[in-house]
Amino acid sequence: MTNFTRDDALALDAQDSLADFRGQFQLEEGLIYLDGNSLGPLPKATMARMQEAITVEWGRDLITSWNKHGWMDLPRSLGNKIAPLIGAEQGQVVVGDSTSVNVFKLLAAGLKMNPGRKVILSDPGNFPTDLYMIQGLREFLGDDRVEMRLADETEIIDAVDDDTAVVLLTHVNFRTGRMYDMKAVTEAVQAKGAVIVWDLCHSAGAVPVDLAGCNADMAVGCSYKYLNGGPGAPAFVYVAPRHQDKVIQPLSGWHGHAHPFTFDVDYTPAETASRYLCGTPAVLSMRALEPALDMWGQVDMRQVREKSVKLCEMFIELVESRCAGHGFELASPRDAAMRGSQVSFGHRDGYAIVQALIADKVIGDFRAPNLMRFGFTPLYTSYADVWDAVDRLVRIMETRAYDRPEFKTRAAVT
Amino acid sequence: MTNFTRDDALALDAQDSLADFRGQFQLEEGLIYLDGNSLGPLPKATMARMQEAITVEWGRDLITSWNKHGWMDLPRSLGNKIAPLIGAEQGQVVVGDSTSVNVFKLLAAGLKMNPGRKVILSDPGNFPTDLYMIQGLREFLGDDRVEMRLADETEIIDAVDDDTAVVLLTHVNFRTGRMYDMKAVTEAVQAKGAVIVWDLCHSAGAVPVDLAGCNADMAVGCSYKYLNGGPGAPAFVYVAPRHQDKVIQPLSGWHGHAHPFTFDVDYTPAETASRYLCGTPAVLSMRALEPALDMWGQVDMRQVREKSVKLCEMFIELVESRCAGHGFELASPRDAAMRGSQVSFGHRDGYAIVQALIADKVIGDFRAPNLMRFGFTPLYTSYADVWDAVDRLVRIMETRAYDRPEFKTRAAVT
Repeated sequence: MTNFTRDDALALDAQDSLADFRGQFQLEEGLIYLDGNSLGPLPKATMARMQEAITVEWGRDLITSWNKHGWMDLPRSLGNKIAPLIGAEQGQVVVGDSTSVNVFKLLAAGLKMNPGRKVILSDPGNFPTDLYMIQGLREFLGDDRVEMRLADETEIIDAVDDDTAVVLLTHVNFRTGRMYDMKAVTEAVQAKGAVIVWDLCHSAGAVPVDLAGCNADMAVGCSYKYLNGGPGAPAFVYVAPRHQDKVIQPLSGWHGHAHPFTFDVDYTPAETASRYLCGTPAVLSMRALEPALDMWGQVDMRQVREKSVKLCEMFIELVESRCAGHGFELASPRDAAMRGSQVSFGHRDGYAIVQALIADKVIGDFRAPNLMRFGFTPLYTSYADVWDAVDRLVRIMETRAYDRPEFKTRAAVT
Repeated sequence: MTNFTRDDALALDAQDSLADFRGQFQLEEGLIYLDGNSLGPLPKATMARMQEAITVEWGRDLITSWNKHGWMDLPRSLGNKIAPLIGAEQGQVVVGDSTSVNVFKLLAAGLKMNPGRKVILSDPGNFPTDLYMIQGLREFLGDDRVEMRLADETEIIDAVDDDTAVVLLTHVNFRTGRMYDMKAVTEAVQAKGAVIVWDLCHSAGAVPVDLAGCNADMAVGCSYKYLNGGPGAPAFVYVAPRHQDKVIQPLSGWHGHAHPFTFDVDYTPAETASRYLCGTPAVLSMRALEPALDMWGQVDMRQVREKSVKLCEMFIELVESRCAGHGFELASPRDAAMRGSQVSFGHRDGYAIVQALIADKVIGDFRAPNLMRFGFTPLYTSYADVWDAVDRLVRIMETRAYDRPEFKTRAAVT
């Protein structure tokens, strides 16, 4: 890659079938946004859609919008737009609540599907909120009914045993980008009689996911990262059709009822995935997500993956060749097949380097103790962006620009 | 009231210290909106605030907004704006999730505060989702650990016994507007060793609430009704300071952690009410709520209550005098001290009459089997509105306009 030039990157961009999508995002000229794995940028269509939702649906049509503008059905209509991105059929995905809340629903459901088993297994590198939800369940149900076990990524399959009720794994690791083999792990987990819950927060819109093809049991994910649904956008839940009417999940709010507006005293769960809904849908946040998902409806995930792999590989190779000797250590798998759509490098001065990059309009982020994370999002990141990002990194390292004191002060959220 | 004229209503409006607030709402000229107990109308300030949140905070400042624009602190900063409306101090209220999800958190916490007791007591007229959350807990924990008991409003206090762990009551009934004596019920419940959770969905912004003065244990409420936060706006949670660090609620997501961004493997709950938060905050929905709460910051709840009582009484008296003989039966308490800010009438043709009123630009709603509900919201409802609403109702009854077939077809959401 040492002979690779910016012109080579531009040549790749000229042939990129996804290049036109960048125009659909509001992104400042010159900004290289490599943090779409944390918060996706704003689709230009979102503002107009929100203006309509606020001034016309809420402002003018008021309460009638529950019927007239389909508010009531948003959890399902948005779920149907996410379904093709994760290998699910129509009617199997619903949108609502946060990832954390949905993890709770699915863990609880998984425990009920597997009476007599009490272990919830995960890996210690899982996103902490997933582990916290396991701990909340354990605290609530008691040690005699829930045990949390953690095993490293490479030892997960061996750690599943006759006590394992549920395995909760994030498909793509938030720190390293390491990706599980969903099909192999799912098969192995199920072979030992456990249920698997996949957290797709770093997968949906990042890599092709085939839940049905992998025979996955259940899945959750957020919509504010690669899906570009906006800060705190609602999460989604997938439940395989064979499980949908098997158990009642404990957050049995009125929007999971078979007939919410009959106002029965007794809870009767919907027979579909809708029983995984709970309270009143967050209509405005859902409307903000909709234009983003409509854009995804025009995208071929195979093209996204192909470009994502190229962007990540180019980044790794350019950093390793042009910043050789500057102390970067690749923290992501080198094999693209084992990696999601992000690349992480460890560096002793990682925090300050990330701040120096941000000051130079290359937005990545930092995760303790020493990881610099860079998300690669083919819809709005070009090959030239990758070249420029590394070029700026080279300059920062050569001039030791990251040594300035203002780059070393930690913010509350990093 | 038979001699009361429209000019008398106009005279009251001329002296109304709250009259100017109406100009702060987007409400179509001529529309009489008596459904703010279901969905509050759009404050004019909301659209500009949302445009800023979407295009500047999300669109331009992207991930830096978690610090730069205080996204991280929204659950607490919004909670602090709600606190004065419900008799809570700063730091005791947090905003997030739906009412249903928050009911689950508080019921679970209440059970843990009262080990050895298993009954959750409510009344059969409570909003169904509250009852469904009890049932979800029972289904999940088992009959040996949770028993749901229901007692009529007038028999609640007698129904509390040594088995009662938690009493969950909606302060103002969603069908009838009947209001509990919060102080008396709280005292009686606590005297028998139980914990009380007040659902303030139909109270916050409707009637003065003094949680601290009543020594309430915990409370939840929504922000999309009287508070005008927008469809599906996030809910709030109050936990009395004496209980805040007592137990860990089971939905222990990362935003309830003492230090969310240290990404510890182990959950350490915040020592404050923040431990009642769970997942990533729904930033956009929260931003929509903010201007509404800022408006409430300018309002004196005593004035709101005074006008609310007058509007409700005027409505009752005008309907009973001008529609005498048309079969309306008051379903709300006649005594204002026992009533929230809504009035319900039973009528055999209630559904069709409500539809005829809507066609005539008087928006109320209907709840089975026969209840016509009308919410009175002093910030944007005038005395003349009440006079006009009844005037249109009189015409509908006299001409039997409600008999038209199109008014009898039920919509999905009524």
